[in-house]
Amino acid sequence: MKLNLALAGFGNVARRFVRLLREREAELAALGLEPVIVGIATKRHGALFSSRGIDAVEQAARLERIPSTGSGQASAGVRIEDGVGVPVRDVLALISKTADLWEPAVLVETTVLDITAGEPAITHVRAALTSGLHVVTANKGPAAFAARALQRIAADRGVSFRFEGAVMDGIPVFNLVRETLPAVRVLGFEGVLNTTTNQMLVAIERGENAAAALARMQAEGIAEADPSLDLEGWDAAAKTAALANVLFDTPGPGITPHDVDREGLGANIDARVREAASRGARLKLMARAWIDGGRARAEVKLREVHPSGPFGALDGPANAIRIDTDLAGPIVITQLEGSLTATAYALVSDLVGIARRLQAHG
Amino acid sequence: MKLNLALAGFGNVARRFVRLLREREAELAALGLEPVIVGIATKRHGALFSSRGIDAVEQAARLERIPSTGSGQASAGVRIEDGVGVPVRDVLALISKTADLWEPAVLVETTVLDITAGEPAITHVRAALTSGLHVVTANKGPAAFAARALQRIAADRGVSFRFEGAVMDGIPVFNLVRETLPAVRVLGFEGVLNTTTNQMLVAIERGENAAAALARMQAEGIAEADPSLDLEGWDAAAKTAALANVLFDTPGPGITPHDVDREGLGANIDARVREAASRGARLKLMARAWIDGGRARAEVKLREVHPSGPFGALDGPANAIRIDTDLAGPIVITQLEGSLTATAYALVSDLVGIARRLQAHG
Repeated sequence: MKLNLALAGFGNVARRFVRLLREREAELAALGLEPVIVGIATKRHGALFSSRGIDAVEQAARLERIPSTGSGQASAGVRIEDGVGVPVRDVLALISKTADLWEPAVLVETTVLDITAGEPAITHVRAALTSGLHVVTANKGPAAFAARALQRIAADRGVSFRFEGAVMDGIPVFNLVRETLPAVRVLGFEGVLNTTTNQMLVAIERGENAAAALARMQAEGIAEADPSLDLEGWDAAAKTAALANVLFDTPGPGITPHDVDREGLGANIDARVREAASRGARLKLMARAWIDGGRARAEVKLREVHPSGPFGALDGPANAIRIDTDLAGPIVITQLEGSLTATAYALVSDLVGIARRLQAHG
Repeated sequence: MKLNLALAGFGNVARRFVRLLREREAELAALGLEPVIVGIATKRHGALFSSRGIDAVEQAARLERIPSTGSGQASAGVRIEDGVGVPVRDVLALISKTADLWEPAVLVETTVLDITAGEPAITHVRAALTSGLHVVTANKGPAAFAARALQRIAADRGVSFRFEGAVMDGIPVFNLVRETLPAVRVLGFEGVLNTTTNQMLVAIERGENAAAALARMQAEGIAEADPSLDLEGWDAAAKTAALANVLFDTPGPGITPHDVDREGLGANIDARVREAASRGARLKLMARAWIDGGRARAEVKLREVHPSGPFGALDGPANAIRIDTDLAGPIVITQLEGSLTATAYALVSDLVGIARRLQAHG
């Protein structure tokens, strides 16, 4: 089935995504998905819309040839603008134009996120769902702050809101529970959800100090220029809130990252790692959530774990979650190596899910 | 939707299954599944059929009150017979009667398996599919020996053949790949698939010798009276063949457990475990499969692994598999504690999958 796609954000993930659609065109067609990219809103190069479809792979290549100065000469068909993020007005205009086509359409949301507020992704997602577009996103903000409110809008409009790429960098967690564990109750979960802090903790164990490890990881492009959202536990807290909001059957609007009892690596992290090692343990930034009196409780805390357990064994850019279920027992799913392709693939898998649902229910 | 169920085999798994259907009646109805058990073929107590439905929970309780002598007095409605397994003629009669109802129906296959031949489960599954019944089974034989041939019959008849409980004791592997990883190619996999041998290897590491560990595990009901199928690697080989037949997109009829390069624990297992430990490693019975020149290759071999890897960390009745994919990277899924409920639940999850497919496609 033909699905119109509007891309809000056209950075690394979105560009890998459009190339993946091209690379797997035949397989996706066999699964019933024929995507047509009708619009792209970029951070620095304006927005494009064409009801007949845009060659997004060509646009990606074109943007990669433009020096990334924040402004510059417009290539044919590409309007250029400054801005710290994709302009919200461009995204809203794109949603509106896409909705006006009156065909099944999906907003593919990959803009830069303010993880402490969930914006502007929440605004984009809400506008799209309200306009009758399905949404797939790699952003954790909407699910962390407003999963249930947004799911309700989606249900009312008969559209889907999916975000498999938001939490585990592309390996299935939400789809695992929804598609493969029907009628199961999730009782709680625990995991290592942030790879940057995990890599730093491993580096400290191996003899680097935290400052040196951070500087090296920044130089290698593994850590952000502003690493505070990872190091202070905000990223893990947002993922924890998203998981609790979706996996728990608690009543109410759900929690936000601000409700997560959150700890970061802290100033004395070198000493804490050494202390743990002296006890034969490894220090990990553990995310955990459980149901207490019908309400979700969640925390992100440094904890000492045994080196040969499912979390103690995690080295490098790996993450893992143990989901405790009533019928299928505890299940651990581990991602050994995250990648740009895996995150982009999560968007593709969500699109296929939407196409399958549309084919099933008309 | 109403689904008629015919049960071939009514042992522990099937009895837990019918109780689970009762316990989750409301949740399953919300998912569109309204099961009606129309027939039961047992090993020692004959077969029952009623087009209006059988109270299988009551039948389970009734059988549990009969001393398990292999023969005895018939309770009302229960015909009693001797036999080493469920009589094939009873199963075939049950399939025939169920098919004659001309309503959507499923054979739930849980008979005792000859793992070196895959029978009688293959005969049961083939007869059911040919008669237009869907099939769910916890038996690994049909998928290990004849997955592709049986899937072809199912496709021709427009029915489903599912076996989530056959390999990982209930945690999703086949459904994980089918439902959550569309358009992904599985390149290979590796794992610990047999819990009995894993528990023995851990016991030997802890100071028991193999003979004592086996005797203890048999006394505790963890190991079979005839443990050879586990210890010689047949169980792991059957699971490996089933996984390769389903997950690989190689051409042809697939492999059987006899094509798996198979090693068991062997007579010198105590010494081998100690040697591994002296090198800081753990000995594990590793199942592995890969694609070589367009053909599936598979092995089950004792291998030394690092204690803090995804397989080295497995203690006790755990199993785990790493699935190597082209787009989503390597994904590890681990079951920390198998249980009767988890295996019975796998049958339920497969039933829900069938109901969803029927609702979608009419």
